[in-house]
Amino acid sequence: MRVVLAAGTTETALIDGISAAGAAPELMAHTPSADVEILAYGAPTAAPVTPVSPTGCPTPAAVTRAVREVVGFEVAVVDAGLSEPTGAPTVDLGVEPGTDIREPEAVPQASSFYPRAREYGRTLPDDTLVIGETVPGGTTTALGVLTALDEPGGVSSSLPTNPLERKRRVVETGLAESDLEPGDCEGDPLEAIRAVGDPVQPTVAGIAAGALETGTDVTLAGGTQMVAIAAVLRHAGIDAPVTIATTSFVADEQGDALPAACDRLDCELRVTDPGFDERDHVAMARYCAGEAKEGVAMGGALSLVPDGRMSAVRDRLEVVCARLGIEPETGEQEGAATEPTEGTHGP
Amino acid sequence: MRVVLAAGTTETALIDGISAAGAAPELMAHTPSADVEILAYGAPTAAPVTPVSPTGCPTPAAVTRAVREVVGFEVAVVDAGLSEPTGAPTVDLGVEPGTDIREPEAVPQASSFYPRAREYGRTLPDDTLVIGETVPGGTTTALGVLTALDEPGGVSSSLPTNPLERKRRVVETGLAESDLEPGDCEGDPLEAIRAVGDPVQPTVAGIAAGALETGTDVTLAGGTQMVAIAAVLRHAGIDAPVTIATTSFVADEQGDALPAACDRLDCELRVTDPGFDERDHVAMARYCAGEAKEGVAMGGALSLVPDGRMSAVRDRLEVVCARLGIEPETGEQEGAATEPTEGTHGP
Repeated sequence: MRVVLAAGTTETALIDGISAAGAAPELMAHTPSADVEILAYGAPTAAPVTPVSPTGCPTPAAVTRAVREVVGFEVAVVDAGLSEPTGAPTVDLGVEPGTDIREPEAVPQASSFYPRAREYGRTLPDDTLVIGETVPGGTTTALGVLTALDEPGGVSSSLPTNPLERKRRVVETGLAESDLEPGDCEGDPLEAIRAVGDPVQPTVAGIAAGALETGTDVTLAGGTQMVAIAAVLRHAGIDAPVTIATTSFVADEQGDALPAACDRLDCELRVTDPGFDERDHVAMARYCAGEAKEGVAMGGALSLVPDGRMSAVRDRLEVVCARLGIEPETGEQEGAATEPTEGTHGP
Repeated sequence: MRVVLAAGTTETALIDGISAAGAAPELMAHTPSADVEILAYGAPTAAPVTPVSPTGCPTPAAVTRAVREVVGFEVAVVDAGLSEPTGAPTVDLGVEPGTDIREPEAVPQASSFYPRAREYGRTLPDDTLVIGETVPGGTTTALGVLTALDEPGGVSSSLPTNPLERKRRVVETGLAESDLEPGDCEGDPLEAIRAVGDPVQPTVAGIAAGALETGTDVTLAGGTQMVAIAAVLRHAGIDAPVTIATTSFVADEQGDALPAACDRLDCELRVTDPGFDERDHVAMARYCAGEAKEGVAMGGALSLVPDGRMSAVRDRLEVVCARLGIEPETGEQEGAATEPTEGTHGP
């Protein structure tokens, strides 16, 4: 068993109101680089940012790392278009950062990234892969691909209040700039990604496709972004069994839409509740309030926790949070009435 | 605790009789790329070679991997000058392959690789680092650096019969081509590496130096190549405690020379015997016959095995060997009278 994390960037994240556009958009490109350092080392190393929202909500990488410190799974991080350096070890498949989906081409080389990732997925000897992602702006590009493929349903958000209408308008503009209508890419998912996707998508889909070809069990670790990946696989004619593993935070937000999407795409859905409501800790409280929700393979990692060990994961998350400089609680954060600032991760 | 592996290449390995010059020198550059895949995934993935000698002796990466599958330590592989692609995740510090030490400059950028590696070592949050290497030809470059620094003693070999005189002649030529006499680089170890070293040396020494600066415990995992690294550190004025952890195979070959070198360099020496003589398996028999001996952090990994678990490591090594296509035993290999072909790893 191995967790594979595809980490990349798209300039779509810089669109106002899409993802963490608040305080410091120039730092957002460092978020996936910092996430993979947290996953690899337990804390950022070379990255100049620590992805914690002003309300004290840490990146889901903190949760995935906490699970790793309890369960001990192996990790491979794939550079799926990082635009800033990282101190973490990464697999180099030559994937480049993506542009704003309102440009005519969002991922010009999607059709070459996919076969490289597929070959990589074919070579991995593991029996089971759990494949996650970190890409700020990724729910918008997921909506783009789902729309281009005429797959119904919305996408989630790292915010308690989902700016879904704003994302829809961005996708509409993106499709128009690519001379496409919704549904125009049915059966041609790489064209959908090229037009309105991000570079993490052909990387994750390619790794999954290659692994499935060699009989490996594949779990897509994430929420609505992984629904988009499942759609890419199905539109590519790949009908092997696939599981989507996400968090209760995404499942609660999405309601019936998530099981309906999984059913339509013939995917098994696994939802894990980390029991964060049992702790009085700001990081867990923020997740319970709907911040962050998912990302960096969090739901997939949580699905690996054996019965009776989730409390140990919560203990460990407190340790990881301390490393990230998060105090367990503050008066401001307890019952704060202010709207949280946007996080950089969407499910 | 983390095992950091610096993987690189030097054209010195291509000199006839130095390292695995036998069957296919053009494949030798792939050996460290394959080693790190074995360490990361349990088997080669993208590399077109499986480092197993014709007698059935696997690369020490197989042993380090077996320990990892039992003990579960975390790994970071640093690209210290790989000349061929690898499917394993690697940290990119911009280190380039080394040239033949008989050229005027063996590692022209040694003085820029070292501070980058040192900065990387400074950033790692681990309490303890075990730092290993994989670089074919590495015992010759180790002898080069030791000679340039006027440190006495020989170096080990991946062969039962050590071609030490040949290595000495190569080093003599290398020093002469760099306009140096033995001892000319005392107190200037980066100059020694620039002239007659390899790119793995400033990488390992830099990581160790940075880690020591931040109070991290450092174990150098290897034999005489790590003696050369310890010499680099001491000649750089770094006097923090350092441990060298190697295998009983190196210790047996080196006799009193190894403890003497460690004593001179004020390093603690830890020798671990994996008990390979207790098994009737060709891979373990070849190590007992003096092949390979050390490399890819093998001695350091073995030092992490808790009391009573070495038998589980031997069990696991049999599983790893099966993945690498090594049959447990054959009639030819049992008591074979032929001289083994050279392996690509020297201690």
